[in-house]
Amino acid sequence: MREIRLGIIGIGGMGSQHALSVSSGLVEGLKLVAVADSRKERLNWATENLPEDVKQFANGEELIDSGLCEAVLIATPHYDHPRYVIYALEHGVHAFSEKPAGVYTKQVREMNEVAKKSDKTFAIMFNQRTNCVYRKLHEMMRSGELGELKRVNWIITDWYRTQNYYDAAGWKATWDGEGGGVLLNQCPHQLDLLQWLCGMPTKVRAFCHEAKWHDIEVEDDVTAYLEFANGATGVFVTTTGDAPGTNRLELTFEMGKIVCENNELIFDKLKINEREFCKTEKNGFAKPEMVRIEVGTDGRNEQHIGVMKAFVDHILNGGPLIADGTEGINGLTLSNAMYLSSWLDKTVEIPFDEDLFLEELNKRRKTSKKKEDTGVVFDTTGTY
Amino acid sequence: MREIRLGIIGIGGMGSQHALSVSSGLVEGLKLVAVADSRKERLNWATENLPEDVKQFANGEELIDSGLCEAVLIATPHYDHPRYVIYALEHGVHAFSEKPAGVYTKQVREMNEVAKKSDKTFAIMFNQRTNCVYRKLHEMMRSGELGELKRVNWIITDWYRTQNYYDAAGWKATWDGEGGGVLLNQCPHQLDLLQWLCGMPTKVRAFCHEAKWHDIEVEDDVTAYLEFANGATGVFVTTTGDAPGTNRLELTFEMGKIVCENNELIFDKLKINEREFCKTEKNGFAKPEMVRIEVGTDGRNEQHIGVMKAFVDHILNGGPLIADGTEGINGLTLSNAMYLSSWLDKTVEIPFDEDLFLEELNKRRKTSKKKEDTGVVFDTTGTY
Repeated sequence: MREIRLGIIGIGGMGSQHALSVSSGLVEGLKLVAVADSRKERLNWATENLPEDVKQFANGEELIDSGLCEAVLIATPHYDHPRYVIYALEHGVHAFSEKPAGVYTKQVREMNEVAKKSDKTFAIMFNQRTNCVYRKLHEMMRSGELGELKRVNWIITDWYRTQNYYDAAGWKATWDGEGGGVLLNQCPHQLDLLQWLCGMPTKVRAFCHEAKWHDIEVEDDVTAYLEFANGATGVFVTTTGDAPGTNRLELTFEMGKIVCENNELIFDKLKINEREFCKTEKNGFAKPEMVRIEVGTDGRNEQHIGVMKAFVDHILNGGPLIADGTEGINGLTLSNAMYLSSWLDKTVEIPFDEDLFLEELNKRRKTSKKKEDTGVVFDTTGTY
Repeated sequence: MREIRLGIIGIGGMGSQHALSVSSGLVEGLKLVAVADSRKERLNWATENLPEDVKQFANGEELIDSGLCEAVLIATPHYDHPRYVIYALEHGVHAFSEKPAGVYTKQVREMNEVAKKSDKTFAIMFNQRTNCVYRKLHEMMRSGELGELKRVNWIITDWYRTQNYYDAAGWKATWDGEGGGVLLNQCPHQLDLLQWLCGMPTKVRAFCHEAKWHDIEVEDDVTAYLEFANGATGVFVTTTGDAPGTNRLELTFEMGKIVCENNELIFDKLKINEREFCKTEKNGFAKPEMVRIEVGTDGRNEQHIGVMKAFVDHILNGGPLIADGTEGINGLTLSNAMYLSSWLDKTVEIPFDEDLFLEELNKRRKTSKKKEDTGVVFDTTGTY
């Protein structure tokens, strides 16, 4: 099998993990040939931990310009994702971005325009889409067997982080460095899955609380109310301050209810469509009959490795990506809408005013405070 | 044991059930001596189903004026609860009101003023307070062992009703007859428990959807966001349109998380206060250690009978009520605030403008349509 020469731009927490995965041969068809990072101590880490023949660069442009790499994986702070994706694609290099696609949709829209014109591959690291539970749910929701969606409630509060997590990296949890908090750093997965499963909401009313549980600039506690085109409503609750947290996704349909928790899918399946039952049943207090089904899945959950394998297969054989890079804008649209709703203290319709969002974001960037890194890079295994 | 002579005003769904319970001797110390209902067919029902010596009246005032009853249980449409409570107390008769206390807090405030001046007993039917699970939770939350409340999430969507439920009673689910929908008819229990457990929120942002699942005037689908004085946030979701529904109350504290579902309390108890752990733990991704505890209760759950027994014991022996009637205003404050927030499409602070609420309610009453009863009275056993 031919090997694709990969460069990784940004080898902090996630980037260094990807570097180790690829250089140790976990992704067949992918060979790590170069890394880039602006921080000397991270390049020292690379010297100590990566194979000798992995070249080092002080920034992503130089890495791309070197011509060593056919593809780059971008794991820099979020603001730079679009910049490097664009630079790579415009220089004939396949681009693979960590989530989120960027910080604001306007920036990501430009990136997507470049991607559409490019013949190179553009993928995004939505590793949670490889989870058998969400894949099965997606399949069931697309099949039509569930009828219309009526309600979605996702309590995703198991993103616990201590103060030291935020103190370790200077860019994190600042408006100017990271551009957001739990919605932008931890939740892109769930926001992507939410729209992948349920479609894009048409209205969002969110309540983002900044510095509620940590000494940071950005939000670490969010409750959002959603409305969808068909009238379905939703709730999305997240935080990095709850211990223990919860990851419970409940979806109600005309044909019953599915609860996704502890990597299990429990389907309470009605024998008759609720809408029909409601209109025809004589007894005011009667409930439609149901059966409880523990939904089986294929058990596969390859996470990052699976997304990278699909990236390789797409380039070499034209196989399907786990997530096309241009789909990154969807989850980001949701988080941007949540921020805007909270900042303006009102309901926001989607599509929202992207210039207004950027204006509001830039207000916050202006007063954003630089902070020092503590230099600690935590092992992120199992934390995404 | 001396028996208290009870009259029941309103013998529709709930009233007739109470009449059967009391007349069959389920509540020691309480003797049914009279019933009142303006509907001839309900009095016919009484003739057929209640002991011969139970006197019948065409309205509550006549029943009270008769002097036959030392106490009345009021199970009329909600608008009339305060009126009969006031009439009873002012005529030296103990008053026991079904929930809700009334339709609008202004009306209930007047009732409470009368009650405070009266030496007669005033109780309200918050039968869910007798549930061992909620009693235990209340005890734990008062003990201080849990630390501060951080978050509450109650999905209480198991109030399923068919269209025929609403069609059966002319007054139901109309602004002028009932004064509200799922918040006023089904949820007074949970709204009472919510404030009993967590205290009164300071802010409410609600989204009430009218006639979403049924052909009615009022709301049958609600999502509300709450904020409490200490900064805790909450979500309350309810509907009569989900099948199967959910009744899952999740509370997060500094010392862990409690989930109340299927009449069980699961407490994930931290070994160290999360607030302390967050500030002192070096590892950014570490989580506080915890143990899972299945919280035991005394298993008692007497529901309506328990509330009535306490009412008797209070009158005869000065024992504690399950819920003092004047506490009915608390849950009603919450539902009124939810309506007002949804009607005004903005966040409402508590206390809210009660005149404005009444004005908005009266707008809806003016255009409210009269509908005919189908005359069907469903068996309500186990539905509250």
